[in-house]
Amino acid sequence: MDAKDILDAFRKVGGRVETKGKVELKTKEDFALFYTPGVGKVSTYLAEHPEDARELSIKGNSVAVVSDGTAVLGLGNIGPYGALPVMEGKALIFKQLAGIDAWPLVLDTKDPDEIVKIVMAVAPNFGGINLEDIAAPQCFDIERRLIEALDIPVMHDDQHGTAIVTLAGLINATKVTGRKLNECLAVVNGVGAAGSAIMRLLKLHSPGLRIIGVDSKGIIHRSLEGLNAEKRALIDDGVIEDAGEGDLSKALTDADIFIGVSKAGVLSGEMVKRMKKDPIVFAMANPVPEIMPEEAKAAGAAIMATGRSDFPNQINNALVFPGVFRGALDGKVRKITEEMKVRAAEALSSLVDAPSSECIIPDILDPRVVPAVARAIQS
Amino acid sequence: MDAKDILDAFRKVGGRVETKGKVELKTKEDFALFYTPGVGKVSTYLAEHPEDARELSIKGNSVAVVSDGTAVLGLGNIGPYGALPVMEGKALIFKQLAGIDAWPLVLDTKDPDEIVKIVMAVAPNFGGINLEDIAAPQCFDIERRLIEALDIPVMHDDQHGTAIVTLAGLINATKVTGRKLNECLAVVNGVGAAGSAIMRLLKLHSPGLRIIGVDSKGIIHRSLEGLNAEKRALIDDGVIEDAGEGDLSKALTDADIFIGVSKAGVLSGEMVKRMKKDPIVFAMANPVPEIMPEEAKAAGAAIMATGRSDFPNQINNALVFPGVFRGALDGKVRKITEEMKVRAAEALSSLVDAPSSECIIPDILDPRVVPAVARAIQS
Repeated sequence: MDAKDILDAFRKVGGRVETKGKVELKTKEDFALFYTPGVGKVSTYLAEHPEDARELSIKGNSVAVVSDGTAVLGLGNIGPYGALPVMEGKALIFKQLAGIDAWPLVLDTKDPDEIVKIVMAVAPNFGGINLEDIAAPQCFDIERRLIEALDIPVMHDDQHGTAIVTLAGLINATKVTGRKLNECLAVVNGVGAAGSAIMRLLKLHSPGLRIIGVDSKGIIHRSLEGLNAEKRALIDDGVIEDAGEGDLSKALTDADIFIGVSKAGVLSGEMVKRMKKDPIVFAMANPVPEIMPEEAKAAGAAIMATGRSDFPNQINNALVFPGVFRGALDGKVRKITEEMKVRAAEALSSLVDAPSSECIIPDILDPRVVPAVARAIQS
Repeated sequence: MDAKDILDAFRKVGGRVETKGKVELKTKEDFALFYTPGVGKVSTYLAEHPEDARELSIKGNSVAVVSDGTAVLGLGNIGPYGALPVMEGKALIFKQLAGIDAWPLVLDTKDPDEIVKIVMAVAPNFGGINLEDIAAPQCFDIERRLIEALDIPVMHDDQHGTAIVTLAGLINATKVTGRKLNECLAVVNGVGAAGSAIMRLLKLHSPGLRIIGVDSKGIIHRSLEGLNAEKRALIDDGVIEDAGEGDLSKALTDADIFIGVSKAGVLSGEMVKRMKKDPIVFAMANPVPEIMPEEAKAAGAAIMATGRSDFPNQINNALVFPGVFRGALDGKVRKITEEMKVRAAEALSSLVDAPSSECIIPDILDPRVVPAVARAIQS
């Protein structure tokens, strides 16, 4: 479909989510119970017992999908109106896959202090906060401060949703190629929100895994100019090794795994050939991957995954965020821990009965996905 | 119903509004159109054409119901969790009466500057802002600043919803008692958000109407100690007359109309007897009015109205806010003007075919109400 057809389809719908009453106001008695004066008793009660808001209001099943529009899909800093269709789309997915009442909240500000204040101020309405499409490195600080300040789960999906689904895919990809993830060398190209979280989760799951991080300036190493705090922390925390100066091609020498969260076309067949035999290539740039599947396979890739629905092995956050928040809401989980993320990845990967090169991850429409991820968060 | 029964009923429902998808995600093609990659085209388009957000997103039919919880019903400053049940109830009414997708946004801050900033930041998600249960005098400043800053309609319902429905009721009440509103003397008891807006709208509609304002310290006059800016402005703007020192009883001498937006029991039968023959009494304190209907009638009141659904003549904002925002959204109205408010009141009053002492205002469940008010806003 071209852009015009897509815009026409959206215009016809005019907003992909709506609200719906769960009680009917048909009589004066209905108004008296569910609006004034009845509601006054609930207000009085909740003012004294705010901890019961989950049981007595929308808070029990609601999630805010919050973005400042600074890193929307692969489109970059396109502002709140650019972000709105994506957040609304996530709200639609939240409801249809997980029964969660999510509402888009794009913010017309890019100031991290203001974003933190705003989300803290609106938090009483929600049982969880899904941060989305907020650029690195601000996203790290914003998420950390909100997790500390709030008593409801906060997750930046670009980081942790992507990390969970990537780990899930890699668990099966290494199985199919006869590897142990704990003994591999992985190169992560793109060290923003997603790349950073992927590396941390992989390392937590498989401490023996060696990881090299590469960004647009080359291999991340201690003396690289302009390293931000998060990139430096990745080295200091022992998540990535300091592999010295070099480019992506050098980093990939004898690597088992390529993970791309960067941009279209940056991985060549030649580079794939420098990797170990039967390499694993996750080229997840959207909508155009770092390398097209046919080219990667021609260069010897044993497993090829992308973020796209029109190729096999779609590594998509939508496999993760509905279940994570379903589990968090049901279990009244206050914080999504690293251990929960690892369990969620393992739960996802285990849904594939017989992993193969064309099937390392469950389908986004597989009805077992949300319950499995939700259980992992609650257990 | 006692408090326990009401809480049980709310617990059973667990949130009176939910979200609902307007499109179904059943196939990979559905995801590709209404989520990635399709949504990327809409994001790109809206980043360049934000003015089309109403057509392409929830913005076209959505209203935020915003409160800081400082003046919730008659319960006072009970905070965001105390406010949440009321805002959620309004969201329910918005949908069921007017088909509007409203979402509660209680705010965990009482700082007017922060409230303004937050509402401005979230405005891209909404086609209108319903401010609610924000205490005077901050509510005046907050509303004024938001109206100036935003290109979507902003209305503090406690002020203008109440003013519109009060004017509508008075138009018929004066008819029934053979008066001209333009020649009456009205006493407004309670000069907060609602009282102030009622006086301004009445005066705009009927410039000849004389109004005396009374608050807990007595008659509002120029040398009364501790007058806030809004009360002083009411005198300076010629809305209320400076009737000098005195109490409510004195103010009511020979008055035609009593309008109470104050608190339970402050109007006695004795005071009603000081008013002109066949006086009009609107005792709108909730849940217990300034005087009970039987007592007012025994003292000679010709027309008696309250805010309650269990007496005749219920003067309730729910007659107004759904239609106001329905009209504003449909007509892409950027600002609710005073003229629109007067027209809305006249439209409401004209729905009563044969006004009588027991019927001066249409029923909240009358299906003609929302379309009539909406037309008044658009015309």
